[in-house]
Amino acid sequence: MEFTVNQLASILSGQVKGDGSQKITMLGKIQDAKKGQISFLSNPKYEQFIYTTQASAVIVSKDFVPRKELTTTLILVDDAYSSFTRLLEEYHKMVSFQKSGVEQPSFIGDNTVIGKGFYRGAFSYIGHNAKIGDNAKIYPHAYIGDNVVIGHDTIIHSGVKIYADTRIGNNCVIHAGTVIGSDGFGFAPQEDGSYKTIPQLGIVIIEDNVTIGANTVIDCATLFGDATTIHKGVKLDNLIQIAHNVEIGQNTVIAAQSGISGSTKIGENCLFAGQVGIAGHLVIANNTSIGAQAGIPKSLKEPGQKLMGSPAIDVTDFFKSYAIFKKLPDIYHRLRELESKVQNGEGKSVSVD
Amino acid sequence: MEFTVNQLASILSGQVKGDGSQKITMLGKIQDAKKGQISFLSNPKYEQFIYTTQASAVIVSKDFVPRKELTTTLILVDDAYSSFTRLLEEYHKMVSFQKSGVEQPSFIGDNTVIGKGFYRGAFSYIGHNAKIGDNAKIYPHAYIGDNVVIGHDTIIHSGVKIYADTRIGNNCVIHAGTVIGSDGFGFAPQEDGSYKTIPQLGIVIIEDNVTIGANTVIDCATLFGDATTIHKGVKLDNLIQIAHNVEIGQNTVIAAQSGISGSTKIGENCLFAGQVGIAGHLVIANNTSIGAQAGIPKSLKEPGQKLMGSPAIDVTDFFKSYAIFKKLPDIYHRLRELESKVQNGEGKSVSVD
Amino acid sequence: MEFTVNQLASILSGQVKGDGSQKITMLGKIQDAKKGQISFLSNPKYEQFIYTTQASAVIVSKDFVPRKELTTTLILVDDAYSSFTRLLEEYHKMVSFQKSGVEQPSFIGDNTVIGKGFYRGAFSYIGHNAKIGDNAKIYPHAYIGDNVVIGHDTIIHSGVKIYADTRIGNNCVIHAGTVIGSDGFGFAPQEDGSYKTIPQLGIVIIEDNVTIGANTVIDCATLFGDATTIHKGVKLDNLIQIAHNVEIGQNTVIAAQSGISGSTKIGENCLFAGQVGIAGHLVIANNTSIGAQAGIPKSLKEPGQKLMGSPAIDVTDFFKSYAIFKKLPDIYHRLRELESKVQNGEGKSVSVD
Repeated sequence: MEFTVNQLASILSGQVKGDGSQKITMLGKIQDAKKGQISFLSNPKYEQFIYTTQASAVIVSKDFVPRKELTTTLILVDDAYSSFTRLLEEYHKMVSFQKSGVEQPSFIGDNTVIGKGFYRGAFSYIGHNAKIGDNAKIYPHAYIGDNVVIGHDTIIHSGVKIYADTRIGNNCVIHAGTVIGSDGFGFAPQEDGSYKTIPQLGIVIIEDNVTIGANTVIDCATLFGDATTIHKGVKLDNLIQIAHNVEIGQNTVIAAQSGISGSTKIGENCLFAGQVGIAGHLVIANNTSIGAQAGIPKSLKEPGQKLMGSPAIDVTDFFKSYAIFKKLPDIYHRLRELESKVQNGEGKSVSVD
Repeated sequence: MEFTVNQLASILSGQVKGDGSQKITMLGKIQDAKKGQISFLSNPKYEQFIYTTQASAVIVSKDFVPRKELTTTLILVDDAYSSFTRLLEEYHKMVSFQKSGVEQPSFIGDNTVIGKGFYRGAFSYIGHNAKIGDNAKIYPHAYIGDNVVIGHDTIIHSGVKIYADTRIGNNCVIHAGTVIGSDGFGFAPQEDGSYKTIPQLGIVIIEDNVTIGANTVIDCATLFGDATTIHKGVKLDNLIQIAHNVEIGQNTVIAAQSGISGSTKIGENCLFAGQVGIAGHLVIANNTSIGAQAGIPKSLKEPGQKLMGSPAIDVTDFFKSYAIFKKLPDIYHRLRELESKVQNGEGKSVSVD
Repeated sequence: MEFTVNQLASILSGQVKGDGSQKITMLGKIQDAKKGQISFLSNPKYEQFIYTTQASAVIVSKDFVPRKELTTTLILVDDAYSSFTRLLEEYHKMVSFQKSGVEQPSFIGDNTVIGKGFYRGAFSYIGHNAKIGDNAKIYPHAYIGDNVVIGHDTIIHSGVKIYADTRIGNNCVIHAGTVIGSDGFGFAPQEDGSYKTIPQLGIVIIEDNVTIGANTVIDCATLFGDATTIHKGVKLDNLIQIAHNVEIGQNTVIAAQSGISGSTKIGENCLFAGQVGIAGHLVIANNTSIGAQAGIPKSLKEPGQKLMGSPAIDVTDFFKSYAIFKKLPDIYHRLRELESKVQNGEGKSVSVD
């Protein structure tokens, strides 16, 4: 993509101060930007860089008054940060929607219906009776099993594996290597010590506007008619484990390498940091916030709790206890001193170190 | 699949009470089931639902006596739960064995031998000199390196990557995205601070009846002739790390996101919860049970231990200590009070809050 | 590969004692080796095995004096262990460089340039405008996006997914299923509780001599011109999470299932054990050593620290505190005893158990 400063100013309804004919091909940070890039100044802390930046143009607030001479061209707007963000988005849209058409070889099963404006990469596989919405993008090596339904404007990145019967909504993004619909981990112990596989016959439902990172796994539900369900607006990071029959409430955000055990129901608008573990068959209330590496062994029924530790407790209590944990050798020493003093009947007259 | 109630009753050697000509297309839970579904009643707690269920048929014990009028058809059997489980299995078998034949394009190397009753998905890759047993199923995008041996009735799901020389037994299931036989993590430090790769020349052996989840990784052994070995009946969940030269005893079950470090030998019939970490070069006795997020730093020689914590200790001791951990701020406060009292020679006459 | 003992001795500049015409096809451990294998004796602890080994030849130090009769052929060298290691490497080189040529079908985009001595597996995908160096090996199902640059002698294993614009150096190895360049996890909260995706427009740069395990994920940087950067000589294990804008200093080694949060900068020659978590926006000094399952919540500015725990503290302090943690129930009991004694004005005359 290549624009003139004037074109970008027009997209942003901004006013140009300087040479509007300059060509912009990239966005950059004000302290690093080079010729051909556009940057922005929002935080006053960075003002110093605007006088030395190599950026061809900088987006600034319209009330910005330079204190020194400028060599860069300005675009004056109401809010520099949000204007810059908008340019990022426009660029992103252009990049991610530039792929279209069908590359060969690719595989399509019988009775599969595909919408308009499609990208289907080489070596992508779409099984039988599947239904793919308009403007969906299926990258190379994606595997989409039989009967899968995918909504419009959803992006399935390279090497994503979607088992049969999964349903995915609109405007979702699923990153490379993620697996959706693999068997839940269910085995019945036998008398001889071996285990018999419990058939996993449910599905996975992913609602609209869900983003899932790379190499994450979401298992299918156990029983027919049941679904592991990721509600709309959920954001899952990389390498996350979502076990069978889990339900995740809308707009909940879960960071990388966390794991949710089977049949647990997570509320809405929760926020889990990385490497969190949640036990099975729990109910976690809305707006729960869980710190990194915490382990949740039981249901959290009151909304809005913040927890930390393994097993997790209230985050403030955890840090209070942990502060004392660090002093334990000293505390133990003092306890023994005290025992000895009491044993010896010592009191006021003794100097304690 | 579509059956009449009479057909299902005949599979189960059960007796029909009601309309046996009804059509069944799915299985469901008694409280949720809809017309066309069959359900079961085993736990008396759920009896209430049989009077209102929409299920076309319900499997019940033959001594079940309804206390109200029923609208659903009954199949009377000896054991309702196990009959239902059998239907699940039959269905599962039908679904998972429906795939057969060869989809194109797919790749087969020279001198590779494949058994009867095979499914080989499009874009599957089988290298040279490989040997695949009868009724194995190789899903799309599976990669099977040179010289790999796979037993009969084993299912390799989409995008599984099996490095050269790996040996996999009969009746195994390996879920999507799992990697088997990647290099062990071995590097020799050099004087300049860099590391030199130690060649990883062993293999992976997976015995019969092993199930492995999605996006798990099993590294090969370091030396020639050595093998990272997963013994028969082991069940591994998703996103597990099995390092080089690990050995896992038969019927051991390991939950998601756990990791076993290099050269550790795990016993038989162990049970590890999620996100467990085991250090390298250990021996873990049979029947060891490890709680979620626990870390095992040393060998466990006595069978049947139950551990928790990081580093892990006996589970009962852990919870006793953890209960006190939560009180540490209070304990510290009380210790200081006591110190001050002893310092001041206080005793019986003082009121302690 | 098949060599005579004489040929191997000549590679190693060693002297043969016994039958130099024997054929060697494999390497093995002295206690397990069979006919046709070569082994080594370096550690005196294993000397007993040389008198009974089935190995056709054993590499020994030239000052080795057998105390019993030998049936195996010896190769006498200066240093038996390093000679054996050299054979391993030679073998490894032969194995990993045996693949060459192009298997079909494979996909190459427009304007992509590929060096000499190339292996490109079936179903590999290389996008437009990519540049691949001499002797690179791209295994089946690898996905290499548009504009990616890969150096010479780099191996991309099966099913690796490399997003557009990534740059990878020379002599790197990336194991199966790893994802490089997926979107960073960045979302801006909206007033209605939902999240808006922050476009992730940076790239990933991987320098020379980096090894990355299987099913690891490295996210791209957020802003244009920024890069998540893995410096030369870094060794990453399996299932690791590297978030957006992370920088990892040269020769740092990170074990499996560890995670580094966004914008954290890790120093050189650090050593992280498995399942470690590092919070975002930190700076970790050179030569930092972090124990398994530790969590790092703040920057570590002093080089060479060793830490343990979650949140992590100095490793010695951690183990001192943890030793007391195990005694907490006893300590609490003793504290209460003491309180009761002080309350009762007890002293010297009381016997404390």
